[in-house]
Amino acid sequence: MTYRIALIPGDGIGLPVTEAAMEVAQKAAPSLLECITFPWSCEYYLETGRMMPEDGIETLRSFDAIFLGAVGWPAKVPDAVSLHGLLLPIRKAFVQYANIRPHRLLPGVEGPLRKQGFDILCIRENTEGEYSGAGGRVHVGTADEVAVETSVFTRVGVERILRFGFEQARKRRGKLASVTKSNAQKYSMVFWDEITDLIAAEYPDVEVSHYHVDAICARMVMAPETLDVVVASNLFGDILTDLGAAIQGGLGFAASANINPARSAPSMFEPVHGSAPDIAHLGVANPIAAIWSAAMMLDHLGAADAAARIMAAVEATTAQGIGTVPGQDRTATITQAVLAALD
Amino acid sequence: MTYRIALIPGDGIGLPVTEAAMEVAQKAAPSLLECITFPWSCEYYLETGRMMPEDGIETLRSFDAIFLGAVGWPAKVPDAVSLHGLLLPIRKAFVQYANIRPHRLLPGVEGPLRKQGFDILCIRENTEGEYSGAGGRVHVGTADEVAVETSVFTRVGVERILRFGFEQARKRRGKLASVTKSNAQKYSMVFWDEITDLIAAEYPDVEVSHYHVDAICARMVMAPETLDVVVASNLFGDILTDLGAAIQGGLGFAASANINPARSAPSMFEPVHGSAPDIAHLGVANPIAAIWSAAMMLDHLGAADAAARIMAAVEATTAQGIGTVPGQDRTATITQAVLAALD
Ligand SMILES: CC(C)[C@H](C(=O)O)[C@@H](O)C(=O)O
Ligand SMILES: CC(C)[C@H](C(=O)O)[C@@H](O)C(=O)O
Repeated sequence: MTYRIALIPGDGIGLPVTEAAMEVAQKAAPSLLECITFPWSCEYYLETGRMMPEDGIETLRSFDAIFLGAVGWPAKVPDAVSLHGLLLPIRKAFVQYANIRPHRLLPGVEGPLRKQGFDILCIRENTEGEYSGAGGRVHVGTADEVAVETSVFTRVGVERILRFGFEQARKRRGKLASVTKSNAQKYSMVFWDEITDLIAAEYPDVEVSHYHVDAICARMVMAPETLDVVVASNLFGDILTDLGAAIQGGLGFAASANINPARSAPSMFEPVHGSAPDIAHLGVANPIAAIWSAAMMLDHLGAADAAARIMAAVEATTAQGIGTVPGQDRTATITQAVLAALD
Repeated sequence: MTYRIALIPGDGIGLPVTEAAMEVAQKAAPSLLECITFPWSCEYYLETGRMMPEDGIETLRSFDAIFLGAVGWPAKVPDAVSLHGLLLPIRKAFVQYANIRPHRLLPGVEGPLRKQGFDILCIRENTEGEYSGAGGRVHVGTADEVAVETSVFTRVGVERILRFGFEQARKRRGKLASVTKSNAQKYSMVFWDEITDLIAAEYPDVEVSHYHVDAICARMVMAPETLDVVVASNLFGDILTDLGAAIQGGLGFAASANINPARSAPSMFEPVHGSAPDIAHLGVANPIAAIWSAAMMLDHLGAADAAARIMAAVEATTAQGIGTVPGQDRTATITQAVLAALD
């Protein structure tokens, strides 16, 4: 059995971390993955005027999974162009509605908090809500200008992400936190709250809490050990997962999976970090987030064993103090250590 | 000279902390304040069907300032009703467009981070944006239901909050962070970014950075000492200030001022915390956030001296370890210590 993987290294540190992650994945699961690389990036945009070819989505559709390094280079192409030309359309076109991001401290990583023992799984809605792209501006450039941006939530969209979250909670510690801001946003967020209560009734074995987004941000810092599965809208999930990355020691450790649970199209795996233009040429990008994302990909493809071996190798590496301090070890050093630990 | 203050203790711990704050304020500035108490609250709603009388806003308009304890008691009245019936309309009706929230560790307070030395002033837009209340739901209750919520940003609104932020930055360490999510929300947030650049040109002495809201949340946890003044939209400011409260040791320490900079209507001062129904009857609410808010009120009214003496008394209190650990000291103990330190 071979799986066809579309690799999109993207920009900046996306390139070295993708290479590192694939080297580790190939070693953990020899000849399981057949990788084809696509050069879609801001460079590609400067040459072609597009972030990916017009039939890019159709090209990707035939793959078993997509691995993305990082996209964006604001000095070359505005983010609003690069991200809306590649990352966000893929998430939406392939109905990757569940963005899964684990937040826990790897052994040897100190993190910014005094508290240490937490293990949070953030599940972010990935296809609608505050990222709907609906809006406009009137009286542009005048003193009377008004800009509006509309969040669109559908019952289908909210139900499926919550159900996905409840399934995960059942497999973990049985606790689910649903995140809204229903005390201020009385249409979209009250709707989300209602649906949470509805789906909760199907999962009497899962303990549900409602949090406002401001309150759960505070909780992630003050009492992260009280959280298990956290389900949030597109924007709130984005915010919570960067915060989650911070408490786990930084973006160098934050992995993610953009999952199409129905498997009607490929899922996409990517580290949470961006292309980091400032450190792109220094050779010190931490590949751990990308390697962890590759493990999530293998797990999704059914190679749970290989995935577990990768995570054990990553933990053996960080336990030795390799890759634990941002900027301290070179990408190559960390990758070699993980590869060695796989033996 | 006497200032007329409208006190709205509100619900739960709003009552004892308002009492504590006013006791301290009266001692620091004898006979400066003439306080009139309004019983507007969820209790009041249960009796009258309104959070405040129909002419509540007009009643408040004649005051020099408003002090609010905390409003809300979800088990009695849905937040969407209580907050939209009192707190949010006051902020909007009195054009209190600048919500100011200081985040620093008081002496003796440990906080959840390993890092200690930070001093952040969050300035939150308080009258529009994601809290515009524009939206609706169609096909309610059916499988096809869609809910929308529209953020409305005006040039007037964005310009004035940024200008306010730049003025504050000038009085502090000369750094301003402007917070958006312009890589995902290309109408409202790109608009905000453009206006930031425009106003920045008027303040060449202030160093400006653009952050995405997810990235600055991570930064507040990993490198809070790099931030000075942070300016954000209504929702993003809400999120950042709860996070700010967390890193300063908890909501017991988070003060705020809802300022009408033109002084065309009263400003309102309130601790960031809510009514905390769970601990409302235990007598252990920390009054420090409310006392700090009262100091901000005195400062706004021109009694900078009294405000400074209150803050010195608060710092003397926490430096002794009183009021530094949530739930450890009684409201009365902490208040007495602050009053004693004022002598
Ligand atoms: C780059 C940006 C559009 C993206 C997002 O907000 O989804 C990123 O922050 C993420 O979390 O994957
Ligand atoms: C209670 C709620 C509506 C309010 C807000 O979101 O503004 C509160 O969280 C705050 O920060 O003052």
